[in-house]
Amino acid sequence: METIRIGLCGVGNVGGEVARRLLSHDSLLNSAAGTELKLVQIGARKGKGAISLDNVDIRTDLRDVVANPDIDVFVELIGGVDLAYELVTDALNNGKHVVTANKALISTHGNEIFKLAKEKNLQIGFEASVAGGTPVIKALREGLVANEVSWFAGILNGTSNYILSDMQMNGAQFSEALSKAQNLGLAESDPTLDINGTDAAQKASILASLAFGVPLDFSNVSFTGIDELELIDLNFATELGYTIKHIAYGEIENSEVTVSAHPTLVSNESILSQVGKEMNALEINCKGIGSTVYYGPGAGPSPTASAVLADLVDVSKGSLACPELNKESNVYSKEDKKVFARYFRLLVKDEPGVIAKISSLFAENNLSIEALIQHEDRNKSDDINKVPVVIVSGPVNDASADKISKSLIDLDEVDQHLKQYRIHSDKK
Amino acid sequence: METIRIGLCGVGNVGGEVARRLLSHDSLLNSAAGTELKLVQIGARKGKGAISLDNVDIRTDLRDVVANPDIDVFVELIGGVDLAYELVTDALNNGKHVVTANKALISTHGNEIFKLAKEKNLQIGFEASVAGGTPVIKALREGLVANEVSWFAGILNGTSNYILSDMQMNGAQFSEALSKAQNLGLAESDPTLDINGTDAAQKASILASLAFGVPLDFSNVSFTGIDELELIDLNFATELGYTIKHIAYGEIENSEVTVSAHPTLVSNESILSQVGKEMNALEINCKGIGSTVYYGPGAGPSPTASAVLADLVDVSKGSLACPELNKESNVYSKEDKKVFARYFRLLVKDEPGVIAKISSLFAENNLSIEALIQHEDRNKSDDINKVPVVIVSGPVNDASADKISKSLIDLDEVDQHLKQYRIHSDKK
Repeated sequence: METIRIGLCGVGNVGGEVARRLLSHDSLLNSAAGTELKLVQIGARKGKGAISLDNVDIRTDLRDVVANPDIDVFVELIGGVDLAYELVTDALNNGKHVVTANKALISTHGNEIFKLAKEKNLQIGFEASVAGGTPVIKALREGLVANEVSWFAGILNGTSNYILSDMQMNGAQFSEALSKAQNLGLAESDPTLDINGTDAAQKASILASLAFGVPLDFSNVSFTGIDELELIDLNFATELGYTIKHIAYGEIENSEVTVSAHPTLVSNESILSQVGKEMNALEINCKGIGSTVYYGPGAGPSPTASAVLADLVDVSKGSLACPELNKESNVYSKEDKKVFARYFRLLVKDEPGVIAKISSLFAENNLSIEALIQHEDRNKSDDINKVPVVIVSGPVNDASADKISKSLIDLDEVDQHLKQYRIHSDKK
Repeated sequence: METIRIGLCGVGNVGGEVARRLLSHDSLLNSAAGTELKLVQIGARKGKGAISLDNVDIRTDLRDVVANPDIDVFVELIGGVDLAYELVTDALNNGKHVVTANKALISTHGNEIFKLAKEKNLQIGFEASVAGGTPVIKALREGLVANEVSWFAGILNGTSNYILSDMQMNGAQFSEALSKAQNLGLAESDPTLDINGTDAAQKASILASLAFGVPLDFSNVSFTGIDELELIDLNFATELGYTIKHIAYGEIENSEVTVSAHPTLVSNESILSQVGKEMNALEINCKGIGSTVYYGPGAGPSPTASAVLADLVDVSKGSLACPELNKESNVYSKEDKKVFARYFRLLVKDEPGVIAKISSLFAENNLSIEALIQHEDRNKSDDINKVPVVIVSGPVNDASADKISKSLIDLDEVDQHLKQYRIHSDKK
């Protein structure tokens, strides 16, 4: 049996799990790989104190690992962008295949990394960078390879999904749900990148590049987070037969790609609405075959290690070809063309003629009103003279929805505090 | 660019779609494969009349194709077992890789085919044999390769799922729903193998072998179909918060594997309950990472062709290693150990003391009653003197449930017409 020699940098929760699995001489892994997966060196800036492992060479200078001529594959699990990029580049320049779980790295420097790997005829595995233990990148790169992807819609941030699920199921306020997620280890002490949408947007940019064959370009991803979502909107969504999820979205139409990640209403009849707790899911819609959906744990040491180890098995078989991100003439869209049905919540003065004024404004903008809720009681309004009104409109793009929102709050009868969200439909 | 030369037998709906895609010199496929996928010969027993394709050699003797020295990969899409087995064996003996969509073939002769392929160092692709366009075999063989599978539960027969969904959603009787499925082309004119559970059981046997590393053995799969399911049970299930699905199930415990496929109650909170129409889904539960779910179209020309073409791309990359079906000491269980909570529907005489007698019988068998429904009105009972009683019991294995059912119908007050179904829980 051949041996694949592995060097690993980063021994946090994920790196520690990968190291332990490799050092246990796992027959499952070796039999699948058809070779021995041998961990020969670990880079840990804190040295031996970072992890208690025997029979492995631990270096505090991570550069030792990427320079080591006895290593075939470099596994990058330190996170962050700059040092990770330097190490990965050095590893490739030194002729090593690379496996990483680092979505920020791929989202930021994927183009350069893939180019270098291709020049050097080396393999890159990054399954763990999106959806953790659920093999969605494999589905895009291999399982669905015969199909043109039309669009994808994904719940890609477990922290956000846990918080939204808790708010919707248990009526928790955002801050309560966030604290609970932090106590359970599902949110970091600084949860900014999760709850402001950055994490999901980075993952969306990776998926869009693979799905549509365009170079990685994070600047083309429009995104917002769940940090300003209010419980009242989740309650109205429930009343309307929807769930609010943070949905990363990518679409191609006439060779133009749009990528985004926003809180979005999802019909309770759709599979995505059933994705609770910290779980992830990705719906990929292809021409001819329609939607396939991939659901599973999006984070955590075991699921992420599972993806890293599967990549190592694939590298040992030589099957991780470098992604081609220059497919035909596909480009990012310069315009905001994609339309969604839309949820608007307004706070309006409780006086005659207001609904007429609002609905006239929708009519002037040629936008249909599909549903309207105004409750008789004034519950949940902070301002005793104002009542919430919820309108579900027909399809409209983000820019036009923003314009209408602005016109609405310009009305004397409408409060400045207006919320509007996309409504996802999988019936396309 | 290298060329992979392909010979294809069978040009029905799926074969025709595969042939057309290959003959269109699809840049998507060739770029993914990194080689040209070239269809050089077709075997069609009806000859050129079977399909209108130019620029390809069509032979009526299928043996010409497997004997052709100019072919690298043989694609078997004729279906059936005996001739398909002969062709695949000949192809392997002639040094050709094999791609097939034939679940009956793999379920019946997989062991011999894998053994021969391994001896000859050839690749076997059979992604299309289970769940059509949804890459579940890839997930088991590659994506989840680092994990021990604990159990799987799948909706693997689209025809059955369409019928059950129509009965549950629209209140259709079995025969009505079947006719509708036939009119829509979702059920064959002879639907026997779909509705009696054979098709799903064959797929379950393939999944179990891959998941647990045991040789294929269809005789170890216990199964029933949906052909005796009554609308009244779907209605009671709805009342209890469940959906009835045809669930293929595989589990390993203490190295003992059980495989089965039966109509099963699934909680409305689970992802599987949301799988409607003719869609398929597979939940794979692994140690450490928990459940991942794969959802998508399970049949139809485009989805099945998608899987066949993805296999061809994998063969061109050399990445389809032969499955290892002799993992450690895993064996099929000789005993029926697996327990499920259970749904019983009895038809009982409407007289005092009956419920007491029935519940005593459950108590004597040490089986808890978790829920019991007896409606005041006598709706839906054919016999005016008898009323349906539904009992949800605690966990019990199939054999014990059958024994209790027998004891129940032995009671004077209970009609012979008793139905009982497993209840699937994904909270394990």
